[in-house]
Amino acid sequence: MKRVLLTGAAGNLGKMMRTSLADWASELRLSDIETVDDLLPNEEFVRCDLADADAVMALVEGCDAIVHFGGISTENSFENILSGNIKGAYHIYEAARQQGVKRLFFASSNHVVGFHHRETLLDANSPMRPDSLYGVSKGFGELLAQYYYDKFGIESALVRIGSCFPKPLNRRMLSTWLSEGDLTDLIKKVYAVDRLGCTIIYGVSNNPSTWWDNRHAKFIGWTAKDSSEVFEHEAYLEEERRDPNDPEVRFQGGVFASAGHFED
Amino acid sequence: MKRVLLTGAAGNLGKMMRTSLADWASELRLSDIETVDDLLPNEEFVRCDLADADAVMALVEGCDAIVHFGGISTENSFENILSGNIKGAYHIYEAARQQGVKRLFFASSNHVVGFHHRETLLDANSPMRPDSLYGVSKGFGELLAQYYYDKFGIESALVRIGSCFPKPLNRRMLSTWLSEGDLTDLIKKVYAVDRLGCTIIYGVSNNPSTWWDNRHAKFIGWTAKDSSEVFEHEAYLEEERRDPNDPEVRFQGGVFASAGHFED
Amino acid sequence: MKRVLLTGAAGNLGKMMRTSLADWASELRLSDIETVDDLLPNEEFVRCDLADADAVMALVEGCDAIVHFGGISTENSFENILSGNIKGAYHIYEAARQQGVKRLFFASSNHVVGFHHRETLLDANSPMRPDSLYGVSKGFGELLAQYYYDKFGIESALVRIGSCFPKPLNRRMLSTWLSEGDLTDLIKKVYAVDRLGCTIIYGVSNNPSTWWDNRHAKFIGWTAKDSSEVFEHEAYLEEERRDPNDPEVRFQGGVFASAGHFED
Amino acid sequence: MKRVLLTGAAGNLGKMMRTSLADWASELRLSDIETVDDLLPNEEFVRCDLADADAVMALVEGCDAIVHFGGISTENSFENILSGNIKGAYHIYEAARQQGVKRLFFASSNHVVGFHHRETLLDANSPMRPDSLYGVSKGFGELLAQYYYDKFGIESALVRIGSCFPKPLNRRMLSTWLSEGDLTDLIKKVYAVDRLGCTIIYGVSNNPSTWWDNRHAKFIGWTAKDSSEVFEHEAYLEEERRDPNDPEVRFQGGVFASAGHFED
Amino acid sequence: MKRVLLTGAAGNLGKMMRTSLADWASELRLSDIETVDDLLPNEEFVRCDLADADAVMALVEGCDAIVHFGGISTENSFENILSGNIKGAYHIYEAARQQGVKRLFFASSNHVVGFHHRETLLDANSPMRPDSLYGVSKGFGELLAQYYYDKFGIESALVRIGSCFPKPLNRRMLSTWLSEGDLTDLIKKVYAVDRLGCTIIYGVSNNPSTWWDNRHAKFIGWTAKDSSEVFEHEAYLEEERRDPNDPEVRFQGGVFASAGHFED
Amino acid sequence: MKRVLLTGAAGNLGKMMRTSLADWASELRLSDIETVDDLLPNEEFVRCDLADADAVMALVEGCDAIVHFGGISTENSFENILSGNIKGAYHIYEAARQQGVKRLFFASSNHVVGFHHRETLLDANSPMRPDSLYGVSKGFGELLAQYYYDKFGIESALVRIGSCFPKPLNRRMLSTWLSEGDLTDLIKKVYAVDRLGCTIIYGVSNNPSTWWDNRHAKFIGWTAKDSSEVFEHEAYLEEERRDPNDPEVRFQGGVFASAGHFED
Repeated sequence: MKRVLLTGAAGNLGKMMRTSLADWASELRLSDIETVDDLLPNEEFVRCDLADADAVMALVEGCDAIVHFGGISTENSFENILSGNIKGAYHIYEAARQQGVKRLFFASSNHVVGFHHRETLLDANSPMRPDSLYGVSKGFGELLAQYYYDKFGIESALVRIGSCFPKPLNRRMLSTWLSEGDLTDLIKKVYAVDRLGCTIIYGVSNNPSTWWDNRHAKFIGWTAKDSSEVFEHEAYLEEERRDPNDPEVRFQGGVFASAGHFED
Repeated sequence: MKRVLLTGAAGNLGKMMRTSLADWASELRLSDIETVDDLLPNEEFVRCDLADADAVMALVEGCDAIVHFGGISTENSFENILSGNIKGAYHIYEAARQQGVKRLFFASSNHVVGFHHRETLLDANSPMRPDSLYGVSKGFGELLAQYYYDKFGIESALVRIGSCFPKPLNRRMLSTWLSEGDLTDLIKKVYAVDRLGCTIIYGVSNNPSTWWDNRHAKFIGWTAKDSSEVFEHEAYLEEERRDPNDPEVRFQGGVFASAGHFED
Repeated sequence: MKRVLLTGAAGNLGKMMRTSLADWASELRLSDIETVDDLLPNEEFVRCDLADADAVMALVEGCDAIVHFGGISTENSFENILSGNIKGAYHIYEAARQQGVKRLFFASSNHVVGFHHRETLLDANSPMRPDSLYGVSKGFGELLAQYYYDKFGIESALVRIGSCFPKPLNRRMLSTWLSEGDLTDLIKKVYAVDRLGCTIIYGVSNNPSTWWDNRHAKFIGWTAKDSSEVFEHEAYLEEERRDPNDPEVRFQGGVFASAGHFED
Repeated sequence: MKRVLLTGAAGNLGKMMRTSLADWASELRLSDIETVDDLLPNEEFVRCDLADADAVMALVEGCDAIVHFGGISTENSFENILSGNIKGAYHIYEAARQQGVKRLFFASSNHVVGFHHRETLLDANSPMRPDSLYGVSKGFGELLAQYYYDKFGIESALVRIGSCFPKPLNRRMLSTWLSEGDLTDLIKKVYAVDRLGCTIIYGVSNNPSTWWDNRHAKFIGWTAKDSSEVFEHEAYLEEERRDPNDPEVRFQGGVFASAGHFED
Repeated sequence: MKRVLLTGAAGNLGKMMRTSLADWASELRLSDIETVDDLLPNEEFVRCDLADADAVMALVEGCDAIVHFGGISTENSFENILSGNIKGAYHIYEAARQQGVKRLFFASSNHVVGFHHRETLLDANSPMRPDSLYGVSKGFGELLAQYYYDKFGIESALVRIGSCFPKPLNRRMLSTWLSEGDLTDLIKKVYAVDRLGCTIIYGVSNNPSTWWDNRHAKFIGWTAKDSSEVFEHEAYLEEERRDPNDPEVRFQGGVFASAGHFED
Repeated sequence: MKRVLLTGAAGNLGKMMRTSLADWASELRLSDIETVDDLLPNEEFVRCDLADADAVMALVEGCDAIVHFGGISTENSFENILSGNIKGAYHIYEAARQQGVKRLFFASSNHVVGFHHRETLLDANSPMRPDSLYGVSKGFGELLAQYYYDKFGIESALVRIGSCFPKPLNRRMLSTWLSEGDLTDLIKKVYAVDRLGCTIIYGVSNNPSTWWDNRHAKFIGWTAKDSSEVFEHEAYLEEERRDPNDPEVRFQGGVFASAGHFED
């Protein structure tokens, strides 16, 4: 890859990927609404509010690929969701179209399907059941990506990221954990495959327990190599047991599904 | 029904339904961004911009049911779509939640699935493939409705309306035509059934050719009674033949699918 | 048909069918645990407790066909269910095997699937979710019939009867109603078709609202001709409206699903 | 339609269709390996052995549409099947490609799926299970048509004809009967629809009993109007009853499935 | 786990599990109709006829979990099946309900689906096709468990155990073998997962050949670690070859499917 | 295995398998239209044109098993395809039937499904979409095998071979590569399993990227052990990148799908 745009570079995933992708892209253009100032030689930083169409158009210019982690990454007010994730997604895709970017890695979220029960195995064809306004906005992003693919041929990986942290923070993450290494490999595979189409991929490591089946994305050639199995017996996880009928436990989205309305 | 809110009352469908539903609701509260001034005794009119959260909150107050035809009803700029259909849908659902409205008729559109081929029979489980920003925004509305159902128990009929005109305007509408009578019956059934859930229904009459299968909505008890068969041999339709490989003919969305970007 | 055994002849369905099938069977052998004493010339009555293996063996002797309505037909104590429906079904099938009866009409029940939601369209492949011990016992009967078919070639129609009354008794029955005429036709079709196999059929008329799809039984050639539509606007049905979240309304089984344990 | 080629014009179906399609095509070019000599004013006859590539090329020249009933229409020796149905199908499709014919009605057969059990409801996605060399050859024709569609865009209706006779000749045909009127309508619809693709259609009337589901072809707009119900109680059919385990009764293909090898 | 009830403790599986689960439960209450007298310090034994409701009620009192291996474990007379497996299952579930046990491990059997062909890959949604009265009774137990889950929220693992022996006893068991270690892990996982629901699991090791797919149970986090591959070339297995059309080889249930009626 | 017939022994796969199967068959009868003259002690060679029925009948006599690699193995003229693959397949199956061979390994091809998109995961139930006359002829062979199985009980493995070479020759083969070792194991498993039926198997190694799912063939017990992963970063493969919209890249069949008509 020559010049890669990484949005959301100041966020959790953005920080991780700056390191992991360092050897992969010749130049990494970072953007965020917050400042990133510890730049490496092959990095440049462009502050950008994704709700600003012109700023996004300028940001995308000259990039060969977009890894889009930007926007709001958890439940928030509708106003903020609208700016970061709805306008933001539109501005990114429209800029990609106008600037000739052919393929995007779109960080979607498992919260697009968070109201499915944990006993339900999902695949790429399962209906969306968002568990939050955040989840609805990521679903919007997926539909938009599908539209830009069907109409303009722009390819996307719609990666429904599980929980990407150094280790699972709670019991639910034993099922949803995505290691940094597996995410890095996935980004590389998405850009290595000859043909991507517009493909939904569950961003999850090879954990013993899983709710998601990536069979429809096998053509990409990505195989998760890490597993949450090594954390299974850590004390902080063992102690966290809950009632199976607690909505936080019934639904895949966990606390996103059991929470009330953000602004109440 | 006691007091029913009908949004989009100045539009094509809104006008039809004022007449058809006259004997069904004791009071009909009409709203639109444009004025409606030929009010009948049991009608009241409230001008309302759906992008204005407070205005929508006031509009919904005191209503028992919402038939939501409001917003943009064809392809348009992202800015307009955002105001009318994205903010609009959120304001309507959030007002319904706060005001205690339990069930909505949401006018979605066949353009949510317009990039499927005509040979593909769709049902409620088929993946969304919007053919326009308009279609994307209606898909957003469906996801939002699903969220309000899963989290707050607000029921919705997500009616993917075909082409509701006095008669089919072109050959495509032989397959997508929805008669005024069938739409009227559907609205009544949606409010008559004991339990609605959050259900996708294709709004289409009993035409000889169809791309859509309503089997998953049979529990509602709606059966379309009209058919486009009576129009099949009209000269203006016979003359319109086209190449089967024309994108306008390949895809269910017709000209919405074959068109370029709205703002280009 | 020459000699037909009709079990449960003193029950609701049994009484109806004595009349409807009068012109179809040359001889009708009736049985019940209660007495039937208004015999017609071509009827004979044999009192029989289905829990008595020898009695059932004698009952079946010389019959060409069995229409099995006998046993308990609503929720009851496990003891009674065990006698009438579990031992009863076994004795009937074992007698059929030993006496050479090749085909049975087995009155199963919609309560075998009563814990499915009303929004779920069921067909012959849907998993069983019984709503009562009664439903469990009918599921047992279906499994037993399948076993006698796979191992011994005895064919069965497993008819999940909805609600067979002169008219719907409540709103739920607008969806589950089975007319006497349609049931009669179904029994005749089951014995007229060249090959029956072991086939699940939903016993329901052609009602506007339905939860069940008989597509996998189309080869039998039965088409329900009656509809609950004619009763839809009767006052006693209009008045019965309920909360969509009431378990009696959520689940197909109605009050069977919402009820507590029989013996509590 | 201007000039339509009707192959197999001397056969059972060919004769029927000459009459039924008389008012539909301005000119009907008839072909068969046997002579047709009762030509009407708008008919011409070209004798043609379908195994002769050059003859078929000449036959197709100048035609706008091909209704292909030609070839062997029942079980036969491999040699004859090879000439009439395998070489024949290839020559027809290759001539269509070279002569610019865009759409064909290909008379396939229910014997392509004749080894499915009668209790199995088939649709366009069911696997082929031919019951004869004849059935295998029709399956070959379907694959060839699919190839010519995917590679060259030539559209085909692959019509798995049931039993097209004035009335059902045996009990099996109560399920497989196709009336002359319904076949005629189907041919016209196949050429009337804007886009056909390469579509499998079961050629069967609206009989009470059916093994085949045409839901995936609903977009064509064909609805069978006749039914075998009117023949159900004819004496010659009532008398024909058979053991349900007779292979002729187990399998959809009837005697084609139960027969031994043609040449033995 | 604190106090675990293990029924069928004198049987094959019961004996194995006493050892394997020794370090898992603080107290193990054993029951069987036969005596167990080699008790370890943390074991107690209660003789119990599962057909005796009161005895089972007393047996369950004070237990936190039930691992139910009790009852008849192979084909037998209906009378014995009725006592051990039908009354037995009901008494266990009813006692669990009254005594507040929230989760059961129910030893079902592959003989619930034994009449499926070996070429058919089954999953949790496959229809039951029992191959024996024993299989029917295990199907009854599964339906009962589903009922207690849907109505009372009692969770169950319905484990369709393959063949649990130190090594495969015949060629069929190369596909159905379940190692003691894998069974032990499964029991532990069933009680470790936060939410179990009512879930069908095929109890089979990671053998090269399998007829069963546990994808719908992946959320539990169990992965079989052993494989029958190590036994594949043992002489006693190599020598046992059979005709593929032998019913014992056609059907998954093996000799259960090919056997005649138990009492004949 | 005693005497095994290996057709196509002079071809690419034939040569490989002579070596790999040397220790498996006591006697290997080789055939080809070209001469094989480097015979090993347990090999015999019979020159045979598969289009010659009598020659094939003699060839098959005395064999216990047939591994059929013979015929045309790439796109060719219809005339050649007809001789080698259509007549050839018929002669082989008919000889097997007359000579009592019970089980065949039939080398089918991925080109039977080559017009599916690369993003589509195929399994044994996916519809055939041949990408060439060669692919159509292999589809014919599969249908013929199914017919001989359903009517005469002759079992077949229909192995849709990917790309069997020492290493992937191009990028596409990273997904389709089948190692010699995996093919050898598969042949042995096909003859080792007690019951084979008529089973479609994708002949592909355990590559990181795959378009094919062999779940329905798991009962055979074959697990591919090799992977193209080791070749992924070879320079000649890295350099070959292409436009994702190139038909050669869109479709699974690669250049077979993008090529024009063979004889043009």
